[in-house]
Amino acid sequence: MKTADRKEIVENIEYLINEKNEPLVRNIIVDTHPADLAEILQELDDEDRDYVFSLMDAETASDVVTELDDVTREDIVSELETERLSEIVDEMDSDDATDVVAELPDDIAEQVLSSIEPQDRAEVEKLLDYAEDTAGGIMALEFIAVYDDQTVDDAIREIRRRAEEVEEIYNVYAIDRGGRLVGVVPIKTLLIRNPRRLIRDIMNDDVISVTVDTDQEEVAKIVRKYNLAAIPVVDHHNRLVGRITIDDIVDVLHEEANEDIQRMAGITDEEVLQETSMVRISRNRIPWLLISFVGELGSAFVLDHFDATMSQIIISAFFIPVIMATGGNAGIQSSTIVVRSLSLMEGGTSGLWRRVLRELRVAILNGLIIGVLLFSVIAFWKHDPQFGLVGGLAILLVMINSAVFGAIVPFVLNKMKIDPAIATGPFITTANDIFGLLIYLGSSTIYLRYFY
Amino acid sequence: MKTADRKEIVENIEYLINEKNEPLVRNIIVDTHPADLAEILQELDDEDRDYVFSLMDAETASDVVTELDDVTREDIVSELETERLSEIVDEMDSDDATDVVAELPDDIAEQVLSSIEPQDRAEVEKLLDYAEDTAGGIMALEFIAVYDDQTVDDAIREIRRRAEEVEEIYNVYAIDRGGRLVGVVPIKTLLIRNPRRLIRDIMNDDVISVTVDTDQEEVAKIVRKYNLAAIPVVDHHNRLVGRITIDDIVDVLHEEANEDIQRMAGITDEEVLQETSMVRISRNRIPWLLISFVGELGSAFVLDHFDATMSQIIISAFFIPVIMATGGNAGIQSSTIVVRSLSLMEGGTSGLWRRVLRELRVAILNGLIIGVLLFSVIAFWKHDPQFGLVGGLAILLVMINSAVFGAIVPFVLNKMKIDPAIATGPFITTANDIFGLLIYLGSSTIYLRYFY
Repeated sequence: MKTADRKEIVENIEYLINEKNEPLVRNIIVDTHPADLAEILQELDDEDRDYVFSLMDAETASDVVTELDDVTREDIVSELETERLSEIVDEMDSDDATDVVAELPDDIAEQVLSSIEPQDRAEVEKLLDYAEDTAGGIMALEFIAVYDDQTVDDAIREIRRRAEEVEEIYNVYAIDRGGRLVGVVPIKTLLIRNPRRLIRDIMNDDVISVTVDTDQEEVAKIVRKYNLAAIPVVDHHNRLVGRITIDDIVDVLHEEANEDIQRMAGITDEEVLQETSMVRISRNRIPWLLISFVGELGSAFVLDHFDATMSQIIISAFFIPVIMATGGNAGIQSSTIVVRSLSLMEGGTSGLWRRVLRELRVAILNGLIIGVLLFSVIAFWKHDPQFGLVGGLAILLVMINSAVFGAIVPFVLNKMKIDPAIATGPFITTANDIFGLLIYLGSSTIYLRYFY
Repeated sequence: MKTADRKEIVENIEYLINEKNEPLVRNIIVDTHPADLAEILQELDDEDRDYVFSLMDAETASDVVTELDDVTREDIVSELETERLSEIVDEMDSDDATDVVAELPDDIAEQVLSSIEPQDRAEVEKLLDYAEDTAGGIMALEFIAVYDDQTVDDAIREIRRRAEEVEEIYNVYAIDRGGRLVGVVPIKTLLIRNPRRLIRDIMNDDVISVTVDTDQEEVAKIVRKYNLAAIPVVDHHNRLVGRITIDDIVDVLHEEANEDIQRMAGITDEEVLQETSMVRISRNRIPWLLISFVGELGSAFVLDHFDATMSQIIISAFFIPVIMATGGNAGIQSSTIVVRSLSLMEGGTSGLWRRVLRELRVAILNGLIIGVLLFSVIAFWKHDPQFGLVGGLAILLVMINSAVFGAIVPFVLNKMKIDPAIATGPFITTANDIFGLLIYLGSSTIYLRYFY
């Protein structure tokens, strides 16, 4: 649905609500895809939103809730009667139901759990045990499994029996009589093979799986690398316990990229765009502002220390922003490349020196270009070619330092099991500001003392 | 495959090559997944890499080439004999074959095209016509389509007939006798319906598709939003011409996120980690270094202009880095949130004022906190509470300015059809440095003139 269409529908709904034309609002709900309804709800004001949501049947409502952003979902869910909420949760897949229940206050969660179907309750309670960002935390319990000594026909029968409940079926998993995952059969294969063949004879026994406690980022890497549409999840005894489908992996990839980007900009936790609490946003952003503030007091000390130099070479102060900004940029370019490589690959620290060497060479090349430019500016604007040499050389050194520091820090953090993205923006920039000023004003002081 | 395992295999292969033990290297190739082989090739030196690649049969080689990063792929492909290259391309799906052919020099591309099967040649030539970053450019021609007046049994027969050629089958597409896309049937539905039913009676006629010239980013958004495993591509007459599977969408999402992150760090085009040409890396990174360099000369002018103020209030210079860094951080936090919202949603400029207002309020809140801190530092460290007030107020204003500017610029660029990510890092930071210094030194000058 295009933005323009969505806007039109939003306006339509607002008009119809105003006119108290409930039947036509219901018509729009029936005609619109749940994913679009979710987007529309996000644009309505609170009162209209709750009203439109109240007109949806439980099945539509459950599809819509699944598609909502976290903030809107929390808002809507917190307004619902427990009975209605239970109806909606009852319609969901186990993984989505768990996400909703996990966000509820304990007493309401308990009420909801006790009013949904016993089997669903057991499933949700089982899934609630896994950490949110692990394979167990994002897997669903809806999947098709057959014993490897069953036939193709048995598998097709099993699909028929559970077609209603398991929405997306890409593969059938083969387990042995102990429940251990032993193979996978694409559903296409079932169509083309003789119905009497044994599953074990047609299955691919080189099945790629993850364990319940595999980090979701790792799961996403594996799915992406092997181009899978779904991945089975096993426990520590290799027993098949769940399945993660690609649409959830896409959400993980998306979330992780967003988190990386935001962390690199000094935003601690993922900030969703619909977040409206100023206190929460501020709390999310202030830590790095404070760290950088304290760090830059270090810069103030450096400037204080080199006060004499700056008062003798007046023009040295003018180029402080150039030095800081150029060093900062070189450092961010370098650390961004390294952070992305660490967060995307399994490389570990194996490539550290190769990568640092690469950044060093780029920094020398670009530093020479910028250095010559700074020399020219100082020589021709300020008519001071001697200090121009100092400035040009200093900015080259600053860029080299920033680039190398920017490449090493993420590796060190990664080794310490700290997300390297968190360091990239403010931390590296602040440290590089201090180093940069030390290098620049240190060079100026040496020049002043020995060559002036 | 874990990093440790891969390292071991790489070392094994190096050892075996050294021992000239070809049979064992062949064994490793047979036992390893193509995606893992691709990663292994990327870690071997050029000579070993070409040797290992030469031992692969055409089918394995084609799977491996598809999984390689751009730089390694170009390297390997450029070393191949035309005959071998043609064999490999012949084994590929139409979309992957097109990617490889598109990268070849014209004369070699022509030779390869004339030696592959005529039907494959026609397909590749057809796909070469579409722009690389559109639905046409990433779609494959391998999909299953049946007429809507055919039966479930006909569809199953068609799947059987083409099972070899079409690897991933999630859906069967229904077309009318004019070739127009009219519906979609999940393969699961074929298994559970009566074989004699007509496709038109069981299909979902609300099929979500894209046209050949839809931007790949838009395609990814749609697939993500509607949780699809594959999306059909139609021409401007709604005739079904291709299909994009989720694994290619995952690559697009990944590529776009990477591009966003790198652009925000002032890296113009996506820089792959395997890139080894220093000149190419430098050319990719120097533009923003230069733009920022020139911009910061503006800062030098500002400092030059306020020379008198700084020489009268000596301590004012010390806090220049604090002002620049804090303004820079606030600006980047604000613009990052807006850039991501623009690149992820279809929102257009509709939310501009709401978003700017939100950033303004956050900036006021955080600016008050940082402002009080700066006041305290100047008052207690430098014993100058009066200038502390000036500094504290100035940093509040600087943060407000940076945050609002950082929120507006991406919207303006987006409106001008320029990728907002490109502006976020260096451009906004540089502009905010100049504004920040103007605000800070301007405030100091007013204080000096009227209140000192």
